Amino acid sequence: MMDMQIIPPRSGTAFLLARGQMLDVVDVMGCQVADLLAFNAQDTREVISNGRTFDYEETLKLTTGNTLWSNRSNPMLKITRDDVGCHDFLLTPCSEATFTHFYPDKPVHRGCFGNLAEALEPFGVSQDAIPTAFNVFMNVPFDGESGKLSVEPPPSKKGDILRLEAMMDLVIGLTACSAYASNGGNFKPIGYRVL
Amino acid sequence: MMDMQIIPPRSGTAFLLARGQMLDVVDVMGCQVADLLAFNAQDTREVISNGRTFDYEETLKLTTGNTLWSNRSNPMLKITRDDVGCHDFLLTPCSEATFTHFYPDKPVHRGCFGNLAEALEPFGVSQDAIPTAFNVFMNVPFDGESGKLSVEPPPSKKGDILRLEAMMDLVIGLTACSAYASNGGNFKPIGYRVL
Repeated sequence: MMDMQIIPPRSGTAFLLARGQMLDVVDVMGCQVADLLAFNAQDTREVISNGRTFDYEETLKLTTGNTLWSNRSNPMLKITRDDVGCHDFLLTPCSEATFTHFYPDKPVHRGCFGNLAEALEPFGVSQDAIPTAFNVFMNVPFDGESGKLSVEPPPSKKGDILRLEAMMDLVIGLTACSAYASNGGNFKPIGYRVL
Repeated sequence: MMDMQIIPPRSGTAFLLARGQMLDVVDVMGCQVADLLAFNAQDTREVISNGRTFDYEETLKLTTGNTLWSNRSNPMLKITRDDVGCHDFLLTPCSEATFTHFYPDKPVHRGCFGNLAEALEPFGVSQDAIPTAFNVFMNVPFDGESGKLSVEPPPSKKGDILRLEAMMDLVIGLTACSAYASNGGNFKPIGYRVL
């Protein structure tokens, strides 16, 4: 097993995950979010898709036993352990534009979007090809009647793990989230390891 | 005003919509769905985004007054009239793969995905660049607690209109839906006109 890798606060990384390997995303301090993207390592035009996943899994809330699907209708990742049971697949990564929109009085940051774009560029992924991310531990309650949603602090505790099994060879993008609302205003690191 | 255009059952089309023009999507017979895509006409890498839209509009249910946003955080379309108040922005267009998955006993059809891919190819849009569509009149109830969703017949009546104003020069992709569940098993045409 590889040692735990630490993604520093408000940053991101990208790496290869081979078919059959397991990825643990670890909330090393508690109450933090990690935006996760996945691309087919052989052809990065194949990418994780919230719409295909919602369709095949028939739910907006994904946990142990659920699969994350690609835009080409192939299984990419299967959730095999979930200590938290709270993740979001509705919202796009925070960016300069979302900081300007939601936090007009605070300094603008490139956010998870900018961090993912830089980390994924060596793998041939352009900014415009970044879709809605699977936001690990992110707490976005929504109302079934009105459709209204909000972003609340994540319920994850120190040491909580989400484990995903790769169903194909993947390029993974992963961040320690940069936005105020999604982690209760505290910018913390995120841990990960490949098993 | 242009004459009403008719999209035949289980087919699709693509066309230009200039900034400031209005697009009416018309359910000409009632109980039918139209998958709608929008791309920046000057650069089709800029595309409609459910995740950006949910984030900025702070709801999963979009109606009069709401804006549909792009992956670059720009407003693309504004809803200015909505006779139905029921649309879906969660699910991807039906495709050969979704027919095989959901209707294993029925003939496979290329679906809205195949119809959109063919119609958008002359505008330089590849299959892999087709995101989650805005599904006009589509009825996808979801539960706020469990997250479970289902696809139900649309409540739209004959002559019901959704009107959208273009906030930039756009390429629009539009279908008369091909899937059994989304239109109550009846494949009907969809009408549209540009004002």
